[in-house]
Amino acid sequence: MHKQISSVQNGIIKSLVVLGEKSKARKQSGTFIVEGRRELGLAMQGGYKIQEVFYYPELLPPNFDITQFAADSYIEVSKEVYEKIAYRTTTEGVLAVVKDKSMQLSDLQFNTKTPLILVAEAPEKPGNIGAMLRTADAANVDAVLIANPKTDMYNPNIIRSSVGCLFTTQIATGTTQEILAYLKENNIVTYAAALKEDSEYYHEQDFTKGTALVVGTEAVGLSDEWLNKANKKIIIPMLGKIDSMNVSVAAGILMYEAKRQRSFK
Amino acid sequence: MHKQISSVQNGIIKSLVVLGEKSKARKQSGTFIVEGRRELGLAMQGGYKIQEVFYYPELLPPNFDITQFAADSYIEVSKEVYEKIAYRTTTEGVLAVVKDKSMQLSDLQFNTKTPLILVAEAPEKPGNIGAMLRTADAANVDAVLIANPKTDMYNPNIIRSSVGCLFTTQIATGTTQEILAYLKENNIVTYAAALKEDSEYYHEQDFTKGTALVVGTEAVGLSDEWLNKANKKIIIPMLGKIDSMNVSVAAGILMYEAKRQRSFK
Repeated sequence: MHKQISSVQNGIIKSLVVLGEKSKARKQSGTFIVEGRRELGLAMQGGYKIQEVFYYPELLPPNFDITQFAADSYIEVSKEVYEKIAYRTTTEGVLAVVKDKSMQLSDLQFNTKTPLILVAEAPEKPGNIGAMLRTADAANVDAVLIANPKTDMYNPNIIRSSVGCLFTTQIATGTTQEILAYLKENNIVTYAAALKEDSEYYHEQDFTKGTALVVGTEAVGLSDEWLNKANKKIIIPMLGKIDSMNVSVAAGILMYEAKRQRSFK
Repeated sequence: MHKQISSVQNGIIKSLVVLGEKSKARKQSGTFIVEGRRELGLAMQGGYKIQEVFYYPELLPPNFDITQFAADSYIEVSKEVYEKIAYRTTTEGVLAVVKDKSMQLSDLQFNTKTPLILVAEAPEKPGNIGAMLRTADAANVDAVLIANPKTDMYNPNIIRSSVGCLFTTQIATGTTQEILAYLKENNIVTYAAALKEDSEYYHEQDFTKGTALVVGTEAVGLSDEWLNKANKKIIIPMLGKIDSMNVSVAAGILMYEAKRQRSFK
């Protein structure tokens, strides 16, 4: 179905703005917004179902076939409407309402007996979550688990800063307790990154078995639950004047050390 | 010298705001602003000279001795003034005007014959520069060089996102040409990070000699000058759906692989 909307007062447009702004609206509708051609392509590849595509033709490449994004309906919008609904108002030209997917631990599937998993506890900044998802895609880790999430993962700032990598890696959320239990059941060794005196160096570990690398927040680190129940505490040597590192940088160093040990297979 | 200022109309306060906002004002005065107790402590340790300290006592810890920051003068400000000049208005309680330092290549000093250096060409986002400086501190690299800088390094957003690590590592700026010449003269092997087919894997290199790890921007990567003149092009294996990584994450992976090869010495 194709239609046009030129007024920012249109009810569909108003709901769209709410969907971008409110986690509650996303949960209630079971949908969220994806902006950008690449991001939308990655969502499709990731098996997400697109409901409505909103596009402003002037910003699309010449002869761009909007139906390459398989959707229930296509809505051409005016410049004014596009500027109201889009974050990147001078590029892209397309955004869509997409149906969410379950992010249950029980949905996870691995095609290896020794998965490599990144766990982030209560990450706060969308920019850090996005950067971790980008590295998780690049390193092709088997899953990213978010423990005690502070926000829903379909927050537009997360999607944007992940440049669509929210859709390229398996993701599950759960409480710290649920994730600890899941990893234990599946014989995955848990390594809690912690600036503690009894932490062992990350580069002296064997990450070739089923491995979960667990990072906390920059502000408070991991909870006692992780520190007490993880199989090991590990540390990245800190040789300078300060005692903290950007969490997405730390996660990247750990993931790539694990992949290096696995010969990047 | 101790004094008090309670009006936001005060000329000193107005200049202070300009100093935070304008690169030109920083260059002309040869000064810049450092906010935060830890940041100011690191600036002092790094040999920076503090001119004026501005403080709002209510936000300082009890019995805090403001003169621990050796300065020419100390100015107590009102709440209103502090909120005008500070970024973090509910914490810290202190900011200062600090004298800048030369960031010439000729000022660099190494106490090793095999320095490890990070080079970033034309980095744009202060957040990425800050994250790279934090990792450079943590990895204790011997210098960070900024080629063709897009901003002055005393931009408050860089200082803030580096959590003061701007002051803990030697930094120099220069054109790409100057830096290439400097590194060649000093027998430092240059490794240009590039997503090119003829790039070699980073983890198969020997980073134990004098090493410069060179990263470009996320948008366009390194310039042809670096790609053509670096000793080697290297790549971090990209195993996922996308072909880019956050530049500060990539720099972190490279620096820590180099330090791992050097046994973190």
